[in-house]
Amino acid sequence: MPVHHVVKPSLVVNEDRCRNNISVMASKARRLGLKFRPHFKTHQSWAAGRWFRDEGVDAITVSSVDMARYFAHDGWTDITLAIPVNPLQAKQVAELSRQINLNLVVVDSMALQPAIALTEGNPPGVFIKVDAGYGRAGLPCERTEDIVALAQKLSVVDKLDFKGILAHDGHTYQATTLGQIESIRHESNRRMAVASEALSLAGMKAMVSAGDTPSCTRSEHWEGVDEIRPGNFAFYDVQQLMAGNCTTGQMALAVYCPVISVEPQKGKAVIYGGAVHFSKDFAFENGERIFGAGFAVKEPGASWPCHLEQLPFRLTALSQEHGILTGAPKQMAQLKPGSLVALFPAHSCLAVAQFKSFLTTSGSLEQTINHWC
Amino acid sequence: MPVHHVVKPSLVVNEDRCRNNISVMASKARRLGLKFRPHFKTHQSWAAGRWFRDEGVDAITVSSVDMARYFAHDGWTDITLAIPVNPLQAKQVAELSRQINLNLVVVDSMALQPAIALTEGNPPGVFIKVDAGYGRAGLPCERTEDIVALAQKLSVVDKLDFKGILAHDGHTYQATTLGQIESIRHESNRRMAVASEALSLAGMKAMVSAGDTPSCTRSEHWEGVDEIRPGNFAFYDVQQLMAGNCTTGQMALAVYCPVISVEPQKGKAVIYGGAVHFSKDFAFENGERIFGAGFAVKEPGASWPCHLEQLPFRLTALSQEHGILTGAPKQMAQLKPGSLVALFPAHSCLAVAQFKSFLTTSGSLEQTINHWC
Repeated sequence: MPVHHVVKPSLVVNEDRCRNNISVMASKARRLGLKFRPHFKTHQSWAAGRWFRDEGVDAITVSSVDMARYFAHDGWTDITLAIPVNPLQAKQVAELSRQINLNLVVVDSMALQPAIALTEGNPPGVFIKVDAGYGRAGLPCERTEDIVALAQKLSVVDKLDFKGILAHDGHTYQATTLGQIESIRHESNRRMAVASEALSLAGMKAMVSAGDTPSCTRSEHWEGVDEIRPGNFAFYDVQQLMAGNCTTGQMALAVYCPVISVEPQKGKAVIYGGAVHFSKDFAFENGERIFGAGFAVKEPGASWPCHLEQLPFRLTALSQEHGILTGAPKQMAQLKPGSLVALFPAHSCLAVAQFKSFLTTSGSLEQTINHWC
Repeated sequence: MPVHHVVKPSLVVNEDRCRNNISVMASKARRLGLKFRPHFKTHQSWAAGRWFRDEGVDAITVSSVDMARYFAHDGWTDITLAIPVNPLQAKQVAELSRQINLNLVVVDSMALQPAIALTEGNPPGVFIKVDAGYGRAGLPCERTEDIVALAQKLSVVDKLDFKGILAHDGHTYQATTLGQIESIRHESNRRMAVASEALSLAGMKAMVSAGDTPSCTRSEHWEGVDEIRPGNFAFYDVQQLMAGNCTTGQMALAVYCPVISVEPQKGKAVIYGGAVHFSKDFAFENGERIFGAGFAVKEPGASWPCHLEQLPFRLTALSQEHGILTGAPKQMAQLKPGSLVALFPAHSCLAVAQFKSFLTTSGSLEQTINHWC
């Protein structure tokens, strides 16, 4: 279906931009000698997964057992499940580890017991989740005694293959300057080195896995890191744009929404498109909270803008099914009920999670995991 | 499936509490002589819809064409689509109006033209969306000339049945005292009376439709209002609890989540359950932002707590798939990886929208609109 035929809020992916984002990140990883294991929680679709495969990617990251099963079903055989293992899904984890090379993440060895008990054959890899500064989850890198003790416990289990340590530096999402990102990157590298050196002294070789979109996009400093796992960069979004981590021309995902009422003189319009399409995540622009930014879809097949000044509309309020668009009266005057606007969401990962499929700018319809399970 | 057998984040509805909430609101509407037309965007399921039917409800409100079609399919024949009509869905709207008694909402008569052109037979009802104080959408009630002119334009169309005016006082969701709610209620009643009296002077009888959960729950003052359309009250949630609009014992919807890591001494645990299960909407408790509040699920079939003090856990941070639970160390010590916690979400409508089905506390599995379309 051509994108200008949409009649209700619809997810649209610009395949050229997405493929370009993938290519840029894959090249950077190759240049820096880093294993590239992209996080597929952003696009959650077989179609976009295949665009990664076209760039030579053969190993991926996911954040749920369902997502691991979904991508295994499309032929992915090397998957890291980057969330502390859930003992209640031991059966599904054991099943998966028989089918593919599965890596698990653990903070507490007790949580692994149910899965180990059921595992047969191909032993799953296991990473210790470490905290290198974010503070969300994991063993702080300086707790080297605890990390070594846990690694030793994991290493003696025949049914496991101890791989190393894994961190997510999610605090780079709050950084607004390259200096802040570099400072987080520097601290994270240093702290992970403390943990990996302690493991090395205890005779255990540990891979170091890290990587979030802001630092993978902007930093060149990956001393001691073996593998990166960015996800959001495939589409980027308004949060990344406002933080300076991408350009307008790199944003590869928009929600197309019908305009249902316009008050040009007030610089305001109402769209059909709400929290159930965008999520309620937001970005900041000049201190103001916005849920998206976009442009009018005028001609079929017209290309997406490459400059921020070409995005005259802001999504400034969201109800469940509708939203408030604001912009200059002159810009609003080009809209009428029934016009279509394309809005880049504040947070693309959560917008994707609201839909079962997406259209591409070239008109193909692709399903996501929400269609599948 | 019994609720204590869940292995991943699952929506659970307490049917007794939900039926009780419905019964209380239906009785109040009867007592006050108000037509009760509940909003079904909260539960979005045939099953909960039938609980309303058991209380004598025969007319409903929805917020999308898909939702109208979904409920029409389960036998609902009197539906108000309470969002300004989307010209791009004229065909679907015209089809629906042949099947059921459909009421539309309009701000700008131009937006209705495409649907009118396609309508045959049973003329849809139409309400003018007015703004009685919220400021989101609609003609301000004081613009009586515009409202009368629009009503006259709508009244002369054979294919339409002009019904009256409709407002949503969404600003009551920000109210934290009964006094604030009553003051909004009072202003809204007064302003809608201005519009309806102008219509009456112009010879047009106008029904007045209003109603949001905070004021429908707490106010007795509905002078001039003919119909109420609350939705959230079916489940309530932590936003409503913190605003004093419901008790802990009235919250009828929880998300059950597995615990995946615990640090009792830090008063912290990580759960499998994130923004894709709760949405990112939040409530405030003592000035702190929380995404949910809950308790440990200990025994199969145990009843849900009725007092805030019996909810020891707060969901204080949310990533895409996991969340951070905080609570007193002593309370955290009862959790281990693999424990289940039940968390009342900050905003139940948006949590429901993340799932395709829900379990009930008595063990039945019910599908929602997300399974259907």
